Amino acid sequence: MDNNTPRFAIVLSGCGVFDGSEIHEAVCTMLAVDQCGCEYQCFAPNTWQARTIDHFTGHAVAIAGDEDNRNVLAESARIARGNVKDLSEFKATEYDAIVFPGGFGAALNLSDFAVKGAECDVNVEVKRALEESYQHGIVIGAMCIAPTVIARVLGKKGIKITVGNDKKVATGVEKMGAEHQNCSATEVCVDSENKIVTTPCYMLATSLKEIAEGTRNLVDEMLELIDY
Amino acid sequence: MDNNTPRFAIVLSGCGVFDGSEIHEAVCTMLAVDQCGCEYQCFAPNTWQARTIDHFTGHAVAIAGDEDNRNVLAESARIARGNVKDLSEFKATEYDAIVFPGGFGAALNLSDFAVKGAECDVNVEVKRALEESYQHGIVIGAMCIAPTVIARVLGKKGIKITVGNDKKVATGVEKMGAEHQNCSATEVCVDSENKIVTTPCYMLATSLKEIAEGTRNLVDEMLELIDY
Repeated sequence: MDNNTPRFAIVLSGCGVFDGSEIHEAVCTMLAVDQCGCEYQCFAPNTWQARTIDHFTGHAVAIAGDEDNRNVLAESARIARGNVKDLSEFKATEYDAIVFPGGFGAALNLSDFAVKGAECDVNVEVKRALEESYQHGIVIGAMCIAPTVIARVLGKKGIKITVGNDKKVATGVEKMGAEHQNCSATEVCVDSENKIVTTPCYMLATSLKEIAEGTRNLVDEMLELIDY
Repeated sequence: MDNNTPRFAIVLSGCGVFDGSEIHEAVCTMLAVDQCGCEYQCFAPNTWQARTIDHFTGHAVAIAGDEDNRNVLAESARIARGNVKDLSEFKATEYDAIVFPGGFGAALNLSDFAVKGAECDVNVEVKRALEESYQHGIVIGAMCIAPTVIARVLGKKGIKITVGNDKKVATGVEKMGAEHQNCSATEVCVDSENKIVTTPCYMLATSLKEIAEGTRNLVDEMLELIDY
């Protein structure tokens, strides 16, 4: 790596679509960053999952407070092969971009949008990371349901994002102050002024190859906005 | 899907490099199959993990017999977004190919090669699936440490495989009756006669883009061997 290599922070929220990060979106994001010749470092908040779901049966096997519930940082480490940092260590000055894969973890662990909608609370370190990133002018990316977290923290800045074309979620996004733009599965919504780039991924995609395409499009658009 | 679409069975062993399937290898295999216009179905044995590792600390948090140890099928479902079948339902007659991603799960849950080496036992459903696949002449693929499982079940058929260039593992492979061929990270070892295709992936790879390249090379070579 040299000093001109763009550096991406990737913020995970566990490991598995129903209670953590959507694994395909997370891996395809890492792959797109790597294929573009950039560096990435995974982060996750050191907090408990809102719930733990058996992904075979679809049933909840633990909820917050249960002894056998899982930790977001420890589970995120599975996707990162152990190479993940506590989000409290994230400094916007050390990165050119920060990106949030989707999965229910974004709406259960990073925020509680899945429970409270537009009135949701955001994890304190996630909020800090987003505010610092916006303030320092690094590029912010998100996919699937994760743009709702950005809407909650930065919606009042007049940002524009996409969560695909789901009316209920789009209404929630607009209640939080952001403008919503409908997009197809692999399209990207680019808010150049606020340096925010979003794409629907599994909000609309029906195949893994669409996830690879959408995340690559996202990373390409993020790179266009990075200052060298 | 039509009847001419090649169908791949992908056999997972959990979710996470240290106690299950290596996630990048599993996702990149699914992606390569999808990008080649083929279909895939994930499978996993319905059995307990040999151990559960906290991937952030690297420490074992549960071992076989502990109440909080994890189930291979339930954890594999995370990578498959819930769409995984019990390996006992696998029929070689319904597929054109079967492929095994790596990760310690292959050498701890599908077999116990990581503990017993060349004298390892193989999970009964994994053994059946491999024997049936060989007998029906469907193409068998594996990456990383997973070729050791194939060597244990089919080594005496005079098969040729690769696990990269690790001398100790290669010696184990040869003790089980298979011929070992050294390969670089993204190279593929093709045994056309026995329809077995293997590649080193994270036995040697140091980046995710190499995993995408190696798994794509593997799937391309497997397709060459599928009879239409």
